[in-house]
Amino acid sequence: MVIKRIGIVAPAARLDPAVAERVRLMAAAMADGPELVIHPQCYLSEGHFAGPDAARAEAFLDVANDPDIDALWVARGGYGSCRIAEAVLGRLNDAAREKVYLGYSDAGFLLAGLYAKGCRVAHGPMPMDLNRQGGEGAVARALSWFAAGDSGALEASLDAETPTCAFNMVILSHLLGTSLEPDLRGHVLMLEEVSEHLYRIDRTMFHLTAHPALRQVAGIKLGRVNDIIPNDPVFAETEEEIVMRWCRQSGIAYLGRADIGHDADNKIVPFGLFRRP
Amino acid sequence: MVIKRIGIVAPAARLDPAVAERVRLMAAAMADGPELVIHPQCYLSEGHFAGPDAARAEAFLDVANDPDIDALWVARGGYGSCRIAEAVLGRLNDAAREKVYLGYSDAGFLLAGLYAKGCRVAHGPMPMDLNRQGGEGAVARALSWFAAGDSGALEASLDAETPTCAFNMVILSHLLGTSLEPDLRGHVLMLEEVSEHLYRIDRTMFHLTAHPALRQVAGIKLGRVNDIIPNDPVFAETEEEIVMRWCRQSGIAYLGRADIGHDADNKIVPFGLFRRP
Repeated sequence: MVIKRIGIVAPAARLDPAVAERVRLMAAAMADGPELVIHPQCYLSEGHFAGPDAARAEAFLDVANDPDIDALWVARGGYGSCRIAEAVLGRLNDAAREKVYLGYSDAGFLLAGLYAKGCRVAHGPMPMDLNRQGGEGAVARALSWFAAGDSGALEASLDAETPTCAFNMVILSHLLGTSLEPDLRGHVLMLEEVSEHLYRIDRTMFHLTAHPALRQVAGIKLGRVNDIIPNDPVFAETEEEIVMRWCRQSGIAYLGRADIGHDADNKIVPFGLFRRP
Repeated sequence: MVIKRIGIVAPAARLDPAVAERVRLMAAAMADGPELVIHPQCYLSEGHFAGPDAARAEAFLDVANDPDIDALWVARGGYGSCRIAEAVLGRLNDAAREKVYLGYSDAGFLLAGLYAKGCRVAHGPMPMDLNRQGGEGAVARALSWFAAGDSGALEASLDAETPTCAFNMVILSHLLGTSLEPDLRGHVLMLEEVSEHLYRIDRTMFHLTAHPALRQVAGIKLGRVNDIIPNDPVFAETEEEIVMRWCRQSGIAYLGRADIGHDADNKIVPFGLFRRP
C-alpha cells in the first residue's frame, strides 16, 4: 500500500509542539513524502498524560478508524497506553484493520493488542525521538519506511521466513496473561530496556522466560539496555549474561544482539512477516 | 499441629547474624517457645544474594524436606526467590507438604508456588524485620502465631468462610501466567507495595486487574504502600484512588484497606482458609 497520510496521536505523554512542527517539515520536504496529520490531542496535558484517558482513547480511535488515514504513528512513550488499551481495542472498525501502526516503549501495550487483533504493527522510532542526540536520523528512518518501505530502515537480521516482534521488557511483562497478549509462538522476540536496575531486569526476564507461551518463541535477541540504574551491591552479570542465563534455563534459544533500543539507532521491527507498508 | 522446630533459610538476601541471634533468643525466652534452626546458608553472601542460586535452593529444600522441622520461616526479602523457585518446587517431598511457610515481599514467589502445590503458607513478618522501628513486635507476632496460633497476630478482617491471600503487587505481577501462579478465584486478595513510583503502581494494577483469573477474586483489599518514590510530574491520584479506579474498571470489588505492609505492623495473612498451624 502507499502511505499518503499519517495520523499522529499521543496515548501516553504529551508531544512538544515544536518537535511536532519540525517532524512535519521533515515530511513536507520529502519528494512525495506523506502528509502528517497531528491530532490536537497530542498537545493536551493532564499530569503525567497528554490529556485525560477518555481524550487519549478518543483521539486514538479518531485516527485508527479514519479511512482517509493510512498509518497511525504514536507520538512518544512515557506512561499511559495501558490505561486506554481496552477502550481502544474494543472499538476498532474495518479502517483500523487496514492501517499500519508504528511506535515503541510504552506504546507496546497497544501494539501488542493491535497485533493480537490481526493489525499490521511495527516497533520503531517515534516523532519525539527527534529530541535525542542524532534523532533526525531516527525520524527520517521512520518516514522513509512509511513512504517507500525502505528496507534499510529495518533491523538487519529480519528475513522473509521468520516472524518477528519487539518489545520493551517491562511492557511485555506487564501484558502477559491479559487480553493484550498476542500469540508469539514461533516468533523471534527482540527485547530492549531503559532506566532499570539489573536486578529488576533479571526479575523481568524470569517472568518472560517462565511464561509457557514465550517458551515457544523461535528465540530471543537482546537489543540495547540503556541508562542502567546502578545496582547496590554491584550485580554480578551484564545484561546479556542475564538474558543468556534465563534463556538457557528455560530452553529458549538465545540468538544474539538486536539493533533496537531507546536511542536514535533504534531500527524498525515489523511484527510477524509484515515487512513494508 | 504443634510447631516445635522452625527452620530459617534465606532464598533472597543475606540474614545479618546479629539479628538471627536476637530472634533466636526471643524464641528461647518464650514459655514452650519453638526452637529456631538457622540454616548456615543464611549467612552466605554472593553479590545481591545469600549465596549462589544452587546453595539457596539446596538450603530451602534441606529445611522444606526435613520431617523433623515443622515450619519454614523465610529470613528476609530483597531479591532472588524467583531464581530458585522452579528448582525448589520440583523437588518437594511429603514432609514439605506437611509444613507451614511464612514470609512476604520477594518470598511471595515461593509462597505462591507452594500454595499452588497445596502447601500451607502465610504472608507475614520475617526475622530481618527485627531491624525495623518496632520490629520486635513484628517478630513476636510471628513467633506467637507459630507457637500458639495466636489469632491476635492475624489481619483483623479474616473470617472462617472467605479464603484469603496477600502479595506484594510487583511480585504477583511478575508471576502471573507462570507455573507459580496459584488459583486465587474466590479469594480476598490483599496487596501491599514499597519503594515504587505511583505511575508504576498504576501500571502494575493494570496488569493485575486485566488478568482474567484475578478478575474472579472475591475482592481486593489494599495494604500499606510505603516509601513511595516521588513522581515527576505529581501523580493525580493517591495509591488508594489508583486501586479503586482499576477495581471499578475491571469489575473487581474493592473491599477497603488491609493491615499489611513493609513495616512492623504487618499482620499475618494465611492463604486460603488455613488460619493457624
